[in-house]
Amino acid sequence: MSLPRIAIDAMGGDEGVRTMIDGAAMARRRHDRFKFLLVGDEERIKNALADHPGMSGASEILHCEDVVEGDEKPSKALRRAKTTSMGLAVDAVKRGEAGAAVSAGNTGALMAMSKLALRTMPGLDRPALAALLPTLGDNDVIMLDLGANRECDARNLVQFAIMGAAYSRIVTGRERPRTRLLNIGTEETKGTEDIQNAAEILRGATGLDMEFEGYVEADKINRGECDVVVCDGFSGNIALKAIEGTARFVTDLLRRAFTSSIRSKVGFLVSRPATELLKHHLDPNNHNGAVFLGLNGVVVKSHGSADATGVANAVEVAARLLEDDILNRIRKDLGEVGSEGFAAK
Amino acid sequence: MSLPRIAIDAMGGDEGVRTMIDGAAMARRRHDRFKFLLVGDEERIKNALADHPGMSGASEILHCEDVVEGDEKPSKALRRAKTTSMGLAVDAVKRGEAGAAVSAGNTGALMAMSKLALRTMPGLDRPALAALLPTLGDNDVIMLDLGANRECDARNLVQFAIMGAAYSRIVTGRERPRTRLLNIGTEETKGTEDIQNAAEILRGATGLDMEFEGYVEADKINRGECDVVVCDGFSGNIALKAIEGTARFVTDLLRRAFTSSIRSKVGFLVSRPATELLKHHLDPNNHNGAVFLGLNGVVVKSHGSADATGVANAVEVAARLLEDDILNRIRKDLGEVGSEGFAAK
Repeated sequence: MSLPRIAIDAMGGDEGVRTMIDGAAMARRRHDRFKFLLVGDEERIKNALADHPGMSGASEILHCEDVVEGDEKPSKALRRAKTTSMGLAVDAVKRGEAGAAVSAGNTGALMAMSKLALRTMPGLDRPALAALLPTLGDNDVIMLDLGANRECDARNLVQFAIMGAAYSRIVTGRERPRTRLLNIGTEETKGTEDIQNAAEILRGATGLDMEFEGYVEADKINRGECDVVVCDGFSGNIALKAIEGTARFVTDLLRRAFTSSIRSKVGFLVSRPATELLKHHLDPNNHNGAVFLGLNGVVVKSHGSADATGVANAVEVAARLLEDDILNRIRKDLGEVGSEGFAAK
Repeated sequence: MSLPRIAIDAMGGDEGVRTMIDGAAMARRRHDRFKFLLVGDEERIKNALADHPGMSGASEILHCEDVVEGDEKPSKALRRAKTTSMGLAVDAVKRGEAGAAVSAGNTGALMAMSKLALRTMPGLDRPALAALLPTLGDNDVIMLDLGANRECDARNLVQFAIMGAAYSRIVTGRERPRTRLLNIGTEETKGTEDIQNAAEILRGATGLDMEFEGYVEADKINRGECDVVVCDGFSGNIALKAIEGTARFVTDLLRRAFTSSIRSKVGFLVSRPATELLKHHLDPNNHNGAVFLGLNGVVVKSHGSADATGVANAVEVAARLLEDDILNRIRKDLGEVGSEGFAAK
């Protein structure tokens, strides 16, 4: 089966057209089946393509001049869904001209445009934003929702668990990903009523392709002991940013410590391969590509400040989701809990 | 003015009586005005005191045999408030036999016992749990609430801001601590209605001794750009644990990297003073001592796994709060917003 094209919003993000095109080209060097629809200013895209002769046969350009601004209100951007590079990239998925869209632009606008164009999957109340985070284990952990839904009820959380587990099966290869709800303690009585009700539904829904293992506290997210962490969008956003900020904080302290004396500078040079390993493991570019799960189409958000390596990762995330048919996997499990889980409540 | 005694729950925590007594003795070596009421098993306390001849004239023992278990339900522990070491330490504050209580035991039980015995301050709806976190700046940042209140309205958040700022004035020496509300973005439209309303009240309440500077995202908590971070107990607990977990995660990765080859082991040894600096900065013991703010008395929670250095820090936190009369500082500011802030809503 040939892989559907991936639409790239070439104009989104802080790093410009060249980074988006370099990233797509980098992904294509690793997977020569990849084909692209590059959406944005034709001249600038062509200039960037000049460095990548291999891309010419694998990509088509869809010219447009309008761009969604990074700080633009989603409601305002939404009115220009048919003229902006972001809107047209998403629209290409809707019209079947691409299988997935990748954008590094305004997250809120991308979510709003994607929801409007692709609609939420039948049987699902709300889509969610999911990302991969590094762990001490062999696989990344998936956390969702990360901010698409400020408040969530038990039913939303159960649906997020199903979508996260479907995604995790692709990432980890595990048949039954270990799934937990983010909470402020591990005892059954901890947390909000919605979290407790979600836990009860998930414990009861034995037909789902996951091991539901109760609650996880935020200090255990990256121990490698679970594959999917489910939370409302507010808590998830707080947890994600606290993790990102602390990783940066510790590496900043480390840099400061290593430059504090001649001796420590020497030590740093000697142990450079070790600290490079650490840097590689923590580099957000190596975990780039958050996914809007639950829409009738695949949309991947690349971080606004991702470099070409980061963009290439986001493109590969989109390709894996297409290849493994994430949409049908989610549809199947939603049907499962529809008959068994919610009905029992 | 002589400093009131500090009551120590000698039986709480995972590390045992000796760690609590060693910690108190360590604090006293630095501040010889400190005096203690040591609550717990007399024989074990006496054994631990044998190593610290300087403590004998500075401490009295209050014998009891009952101990609150680490995993005991607060409601169950509460019934033994008059027989357990934790309950008696808090009761000593109520009866004026001590100025503050320090315990490393069950957090929920300590909170419940403290609320019942000491009562919430007049004019305040709910107490909050506050802790100090390390930053890239010169001072620790104070974050509250960390789990005493699962859900909080705007009025709670404003009161937490007042209490946090009063605490921060003691820690940082700033007349007007830079205070922010934890949120998932910095634009005015971000977050829940309660957060937005709290921001509006704080912006309007110009008589308060703080600079209210809007919202902070969780990745900026430790940049040293603000002194007080205010949040509901659920988000605060998630953020705190995500920060603690990630700091441990990164240092675990670093250790793994440093032991991955002979070369990196050599580099580690050479740069040891640098990594020790980092370890010191991040060691939870150096930031130990969470405070229950908003009660008619000072209660400090030492981490269950804190070592003697950690306990000494918690004792010093209690002493500083007594010395700087935190209770009256908070009372004054609560009066301020009472007439100006809430009335305007």
